[in-house]
Amino acid sequence: MKNLFDSIPDTLDDEWFEELVQGEHVQVERIVSLGHRSPASGWYDQPRHEWVLVLQGEAILTFADGEEVALGAGDHLLIPAHRKHRVEWTTPERPTLWLAVHFQA
Amino acid sequence: MKNLFDSIPDTLDDEWFEELVQGEHVQVERIVSLGHRSPASGWYDQPRHEWVLVLQGEAILTFADGEEVALGAGDHLLIPAHRKHRVEWTTPERPTLWLAVHFQA
Repeated sequence: MKNLFDSIPDTLDDEWFEELVQGEHVQVERIVSLGHRSPASGWYDQPRHEWVLVLQGEAILTFADGEEVALGAGDHLLIPAHRKHRVEWTTPERPTLWLAVHFQA
Repeated sequence: MKNLFDSIPDTLDDEWFEELVQGEHVQVERIVSLGHRSPASGWYDQPRHEWVLVLQGEAILTFADGEEVALGAGDHLLIPAHRKHRVEWTTPERPTLWLAVHFQA
């Protein structure tokens, strides 16, 4: 047994991805952000669906189709495969903890 | 966007299962327990792997091989397919909120 809230650093040079579960068709990962955002140019364009849940902290996702979504603790949404998106902002005040489930489209 | 902590009832006759994501090979569900446990006889014997995470509350899982695991907020573990288990106890004091990811073995 492990705990999702363990080992969250106070400082973080880069976003931190940790794989929790790896199956043939699914991957569950923990992501820790601390003021990080996606690179200024370009979008994530992923071949798999991604369901994301924010467990603590705050974040803003932007989609190439113009939608912008602010997420706080407990908020979750499905990002369908190839829906282009980026992490526009995460709070610099404390770590933002995400759970992501990637699965085949 | 939805929030995992929304719509948690104060009373609950039965455990409450809500599907959040359904893929061909994966299912993510929210489970709310309030003092519930598995039926006194028998074990869950599932054909798929199940990764469980407790988001709030407290629970005890028991395995047919004798292991017993107490879970609190943030605790997570993988229950491999066909590892027989049951929910031995959940706190009656407040809702226990689980996230479960079922995926093909």
